[in-house]
Amino acid sequence: MKKKRTASTPHKAPSAVIALLTDFGLEDPYVGTMKGVILSINPNARIVDISHYIQSHQILQGGYFLWSTCPFFPRGTVFLAVVDPGVGSRRKIIAVKSTNHVFLAPDNGLLNLVLSHQKIVEVVQVDPLKTKDLILQEVSSTFHGRDIFAPLAAHLSLGRRIQSFGERVRLDHIPSSFVNAKSGTSKPLVIHVDHFGNLVSNISGTLANAIQMLAVGKALVNRWTQNYDDAPDKTPCMIVGSGGLIEIVVKKDHAAKLLGAAVGMPVTIYWS
Amino acid sequence: MKKKRTASTPHKAPSAVIALLTDFGLEDPYVGTMKGVILSINPNARIVDISHYIQSHQILQGGYFLWSTCPFFPRGTVFLAVVDPGVGSRRKIIAVKSTNHVFLAPDNGLLNLVLSHQKIVEVVQVDPLKTKDLILQEVSSTFHGRDIFAPLAAHLSLGRRIQSFGERVRLDHIPSSFVNAKSGTSKPLVIHVDHFGNLVSNISGTLANAIQMLAVGKALVNRWTQNYDDAPDKTPCMIVGSGGLIEIVVKKDHAAKLLGAAVGMPVTIYWS
Amino acid sequence: MKKKRTASTPHKAPSAVIALLTDFGLEDPYVGTMKGVILSINPNARIVDISHYIQSHQILQGGYFLWSTCPFFPRGTVFLAVVDPGVGSRRKIIAVKSTNHVFLAPDNGLLNLVLSHQKIVEVVQVDPLKTKDLILQEVSSTFHGRDIFAPLAAHLSLGRRIQSFGERVRLDHIPSSFVNAKSGTSKPLVIHVDHFGNLVSNISGTLANAIQMLAVGKALVNRWTQNYDDAPDKTPCMIVGSGGLIEIVVKKDHAAKLLGAAVGMPVTIYWS
Repeated sequence: MKKKRTASTPHKAPSAVIALLTDFGLEDPYVGTMKGVILSINPNARIVDISHYIQSHQILQGGYFLWSTCPFFPRGTVFLAVVDPGVGSRRKIIAVKSTNHVFLAPDNGLLNLVLSHQKIVEVVQVDPLKTKDLILQEVSSTFHGRDIFAPLAAHLSLGRRIQSFGERVRLDHIPSSFVNAKSGTSKPLVIHVDHFGNLVSNISGTLANAIQMLAVGKALVNRWTQNYDDAPDKTPCMIVGSGGLIEIVVKKDHAAKLLGAAVGMPVTIYWS
Repeated sequence: MKKKRTASTPHKAPSAVIALLTDFGLEDPYVGTMKGVILSINPNARIVDISHYIQSHQILQGGYFLWSTCPFFPRGTVFLAVVDPGVGSRRKIIAVKSTNHVFLAPDNGLLNLVLSHQKIVEVVQVDPLKTKDLILQEVSSTFHGRDIFAPLAAHLSLGRRIQSFGERVRLDHIPSSFVNAKSGTSKPLVIHVDHFGNLVSNISGTLANAIQMLAVGKALVNRWTQNYDDAPDKTPCMIVGSGGLIEIVVKKDHAAKLLGAAVGMPVTIYWS
Repeated sequence: MKKKRTASTPHKAPSAVIALLTDFGLEDPYVGTMKGVILSINPNARIVDISHYIQSHQILQGGYFLWSTCPFFPRGTVFLAVVDPGVGSRRKIIAVKSTNHVFLAPDNGLLNLVLSHQKIVEVVQVDPLKTKDLILQEVSSTFHGRDIFAPLAAHLSLGRRIQSFGERVRLDHIPSSFVNAKSGTSKPLVIHVDHFGNLVSNISGTLANAIQMLAVGKALVNRWTQNYDDAPDKTPCMIVGSGGLIEIVVKKDHAAKLLGAAVGMPVTIYWS
């Protein structure tokens, strides 16, 4: 489902890219402060924003962003993801090493899609005692993005290994949140509404031939299109989006507004 | 009309700046994914966002952004512009070399202002065959920004020449979209509404002395101001903006809301 | 009130970080243009956005952003702050050197919180004559961010000293805008509403024990919470936020909307 990167110009040296994903928005000083912390520890970090507009508490949406973007980032990229309604409570922090990347996030399901779809080398639960010399000296109860996550990500970008953060965790099989088969257990739903109003579902495009129709709210969608330009006017259409998931789009219009749909809304599949 | 850059500290080495302009917004993972692709190919690229909030299908607005910003970027900057309602259809992609910069964009008029106002060295139509080893191996039908534009821009930032992308195109004279003369053929209109609500028109500030009044919707504007602070309260005023175009502003207020104006709305000039 | 940065990996070389704060938004080409100017002068500058969504004319909000973020940025960071309703009028520009950082801003109060809370080494009023070879050759009356501020910040990031910009200014004692004591003269008010709807007040968390209740509009708030997760549902609570100021939050809800509160609104303190 993932596109492969062109192999034309691979780079050898470990990358110091840190990719940020949060629900902090860009109106506040929060994201900028995290970048200040990162650059204080690793002045050569290359910081890239994936997005800071994950909807509050939409863990699956955040996981979708990580899953869909990580294959396109350089080997060695550190993904720092903070969608963290439980900040300051007893929720844990985990660090995950996959074949190509490292992920740091609260242990609240945000990494489930990555864990179930990427080749995972190791998972570590961050131990406050083992990391106390790496994080900020004073830790607030409301901004771990600044006090814990940003410094740890900066140290990872300098080559530090996740093993030094804490004990290895054995993960049970984490089921995918995608609908990959007619008989699967995941419930079909809207996991993202993009800037153009397109609805992104968690239904794999590999099922396209098996699907006759989708229902979202009161709307029934039974037409397919290959690209936005070929779609008929004013008609909701299904399309296999650039991430390999089925999307519902309306040509030159805002599908989500037209259909009254939002992130988290269930989708019903009518199989053909 | 363009301000010249200070010549105090020119830099010799080819710049690896890539300036991004899209209508993708920052809520989605799209822009971040493009940056991941770019850094996978050129880890040293310096990526700058011009804006990702061009309104859908507002080609002229996008062209205005490129035209107004490019004189202020370093020599060698690669401008990657994706306002591309025709993605996945047969629309072409062009690469343009001007004296100081390189531009990559869909061939839908987005580069017209640059082509008619910058000194152009060469224009090339991107040939899918000649570029297939440079772009991503799998190309989606909906996200050429990631699959085609980003990798090509990354290769340009590494010094690759646009000639290697395809055949040279001979351009007929491309008329400016600006109103530069009383007898010109371009229609005066609102090409941008900025964050403060100021209306930017496509009317050149060089015509200021010849203009008695502008009409936008039902509003008539006949006062001038030199800066925002000197404007009278609650009164729409004309001003020659920082890009050299005539703008309509209301001191400490949102002119577009007050006047019910939006991008694309026609403006009537009353000549003095 | 400020958190100290971990001392684990200080870096020696002067940083070329430029941190930007404006009220320009990200919809326009303004911020991107400033970055182009900066990179034209210092191709190695590392530009970080603090935020570009300061509300128009909300000088105190802008000052709060600078104050709360600057302790987390590397030594040598240049802070470029443009919240500048008086652009093009006779307002002055000042450059401030503190122990660790340099600040450049219009002389309109934007730096007051920094001046009253950081250890200040020197303040200079920017002299147009002394800086004319550093700024852009043509200066517009509406976009000093591009024409004056960006080039000066770029030169500062190259190691230029603020003394070369103009004459030293002796500052009278600048009173803090924070409520630090029961008998202080600063009026308590809302200085920021964040992305989650949390209200940030200018009341120091050191007064928490002395406060029985806060009133904002018609709402009375008398409960405290240690973090967002522990707060009771639907109940406005006080919390000492990550910047050390008292905030009003509602768990999983938008406090500002629920309470009808906005930036600048007065807060009444009921002392215990």
